[in-house]
Amino acid sequence: MNFQFEIIAAASGTQARAGIFHTPHGPIPTPIFAPVGTQATVKALKPDDLHRLGASLVLSNTYHLYLRPGDELVRDLGGLHRFMGWDGPILTDSGGFQVFSLGGLRKIDQDGVTFKSHIDGSSHRFTPERSIAIQENLGADIIMAFDECPPPNDYAYVKQSLNRTHPWLERCIQAKTRPDQALFGIVQGGIFPDLREVSARFMLDLNLPGYAIGGLAVGETKEQMAAMLDILAPILPWEKPRYLMGVGAPEDLVNGILRGVDMFDCVLPTRLARHGAALVLGGRLNLNNAQYSRDPAPLAADCPCYTCTHFSRAYIRHLVKADEILAHVLLTLHNVHFLLELVRTLRQAIIEGTVAEVAAAFLAHYPGVSSDEGNRDKG
Amino acid sequence: MNFQFEIIAAASGTQARAGIFHTPHGPIPTPIFAPVGTQATVKALKPDDLHRLGASLVLSNTYHLYLRPGDELVRDLGGLHRFMGWDGPILTDSGGFQVFSLGGLRKIDQDGVTFKSHIDGSSHRFTPERSIAIQENLGADIIMAFDECPPPNDYAYVKQSLNRTHPWLERCIQAKTRPDQALFGIVQGGIFPDLREVSARFMLDLNLPGYAIGGLAVGETKEQMAAMLDILAPILPWEKPRYLMGVGAPEDLVNGILRGVDMFDCVLPTRLARHGAALVLGGRLNLNNAQYSRDPAPLAADCPCYTCTHFSRAYIRHLVKADEILAHVLLTLHNVHFLLELVRTLRQAIIEGTVAEVAAAFLAHYPGVSSDEGNRDKG
Repeated sequence: MNFQFEIIAAASGTQARAGIFHTPHGPIPTPIFAPVGTQATVKALKPDDLHRLGASLVLSNTYHLYLRPGDELVRDLGGLHRFMGWDGPILTDSGGFQVFSLGGLRKIDQDGVTFKSHIDGSSHRFTPERSIAIQENLGADIIMAFDECPPPNDYAYVKQSLNRTHPWLERCIQAKTRPDQALFGIVQGGIFPDLREVSARFMLDLNLPGYAIGGLAVGETKEQMAAMLDILAPILPWEKPRYLMGVGAPEDLVNGILRGVDMFDCVLPTRLARHGAALVLGGRLNLNNAQYSRDPAPLAADCPCYTCTHFSRAYIRHLVKADEILAHVLLTLHNVHFLLELVRTLRQAIIEGTVAEVAAAFLAHYPGVSSDEGNRDKG
Repeated sequence: MNFQFEIIAAASGTQARAGIFHTPHGPIPTPIFAPVGTQATVKALKPDDLHRLGASLVLSNTYHLYLRPGDELVRDLGGLHRFMGWDGPILTDSGGFQVFSLGGLRKIDQDGVTFKSHIDGSSHRFTPERSIAIQENLGADIIMAFDECPPPNDYAYVKQSLNRTHPWLERCIQAKTRPDQALFGIVQGGIFPDLREVSARFMLDLNLPGYAIGGLAVGETKEQMAAMLDILAPILPWEKPRYLMGVGAPEDLVNGILRGVDMFDCVLPTRLARHGAALVLGGRLNLNNAQYSRDPAPLAADCPCYTCTHFSRAYIRHLVKADEILAHVLLTLHNVHFLLELVRTLRQAIIEGTVAEVAAAFLAHYPGVSSDEGNRDKG
């Protein structure tokens, strides 16, 4: 049963589907949005808050946990689930993306990457084998292949990069030993249809339990992202889950689901909260703005989240201005609820055969987040 | 029924008593420890966290809320209970203590105090009438008389200060208009038995619904604090609640309860949490200490709080080192639980007639907190 992907409904006229991905820590209803717990905590939320929000999958970052507190320490304390008190499914990335975006003075070769810690400048080396060993120590349900995330617009570089990333995937498969973890491959290829197709077809032959789409939400336009998803939809196997990495802007979730994506993750809801902003239909609220100082309304009308059923914009603005921790907590609760509820609504609409209409109605009223803000974060 | 104080048990051989103080927002079982929500939030905790901890009374600071977001704003948004989403009893202090400890360049005269905001340096003036008007705008269940908190060791100054504080109390009583708020007087007098007695006897004639003991936990020794409580116990009316302001070190709660104190408040549990420390039997844990980096034990063995039933010292230390908000949340939950549970245990022991033994057993195993750390904080 583990890592079986059941598709329970598909929406005619789109690529959207609703399913269940089974993991050792429980079923993941798909489509799913995964909040990010970079350092083994979804910032400002307790696991019981996440359960109450209905979160089912949480992402954590291999690069960060390897550096601090160390993957062997996490293993010795019973693994990441027990360490962070989260008994639901967890996904870890490979560390590749952070090595390239956060690690200093990196040197890449055919075997791996040498980089410096962003914490103390110490030197470290990741290889495919090392990434898998670390992820096995952490013990997530879903682990990712070690890959390079190249600049998406440089054709020559992206093509050459595939010649590293693909052998690295084969080495990850060889290195993997735990049967209770699903290893996903990551399709790269930048914004180039032919390279995306090459990368996808290479992976199909390896018969993996799931496929990620990497190297998007890193600076390309939303049209380019959509084009890549349109190219991949008919190539990737229908019966395997598809995970669009680092994507979480509301309109990107809608467009991704319509194009057959099953899984998403993004720091957007937690990061916006730290900046004093709330995701709402029609855009977002910046609670730093003085216009909310006497506003008795909740962040979002009719929102059933804990924050909106108990507190006014005026109160949350007060907390933001007073630099109170509760501002982060309440805004994070609302923002994570917003994205989880959006995806739940779309899942239900897929099951009921109304996803095209529901998606169109949402997109008509949602002006979108500027592309840089919706983009993949360094963690 | 409002502001009626029912004494349901008294412990022979000590001054300890267990009771219920009735307020418009519900009954307060006494003895009670009140967590402090300086800026209309108990730092890092949601109201539902406080409810789950069994908190019944929360303190908030008039000085802080007057400056930000402003008491009239709080009034216009329905009062402090609604503003902060806390439907239980609230106590506000008068602002006096913070004016003297935080306000810059203060000038005191017989009519009131002029001071500068610690936020922006702007000039403000508090008088007894102004303090009551602000506290009426905030709308707490229990409000405090505006007083001067003098240096406790200067006899001449403390004596002169009573000549301001006592007329100010009479003016507060005159200024008060809301029948749904209980105004407590504050006994001052530093560490001097004769001045404490003068102050207490002055207040008795005013027949107030409760009496606070101010000007302690500000630098005197624990023996001096105990001596003042011993002097006041037979003077203050048995049938009215007694509130020892700014006190929250575990051994001070125990000693205060044995001397007849019914109410306490302190920033200690929230402040220690921000410093990465946990209150435990036998002292405290500093999670910054490397010795906890691989410790799988909970903060306190057998502690039933959410933190201790879900997380290891190693995890909480990781959160502290990684500067994660969840460190504050989990440590605050535990520390507030520790003090609430200590007071609940003593209350039950008063009812069961075992408080002397329970208190002695606790004090024998608790080395205490150094007096500076247990002391009243500026907020």
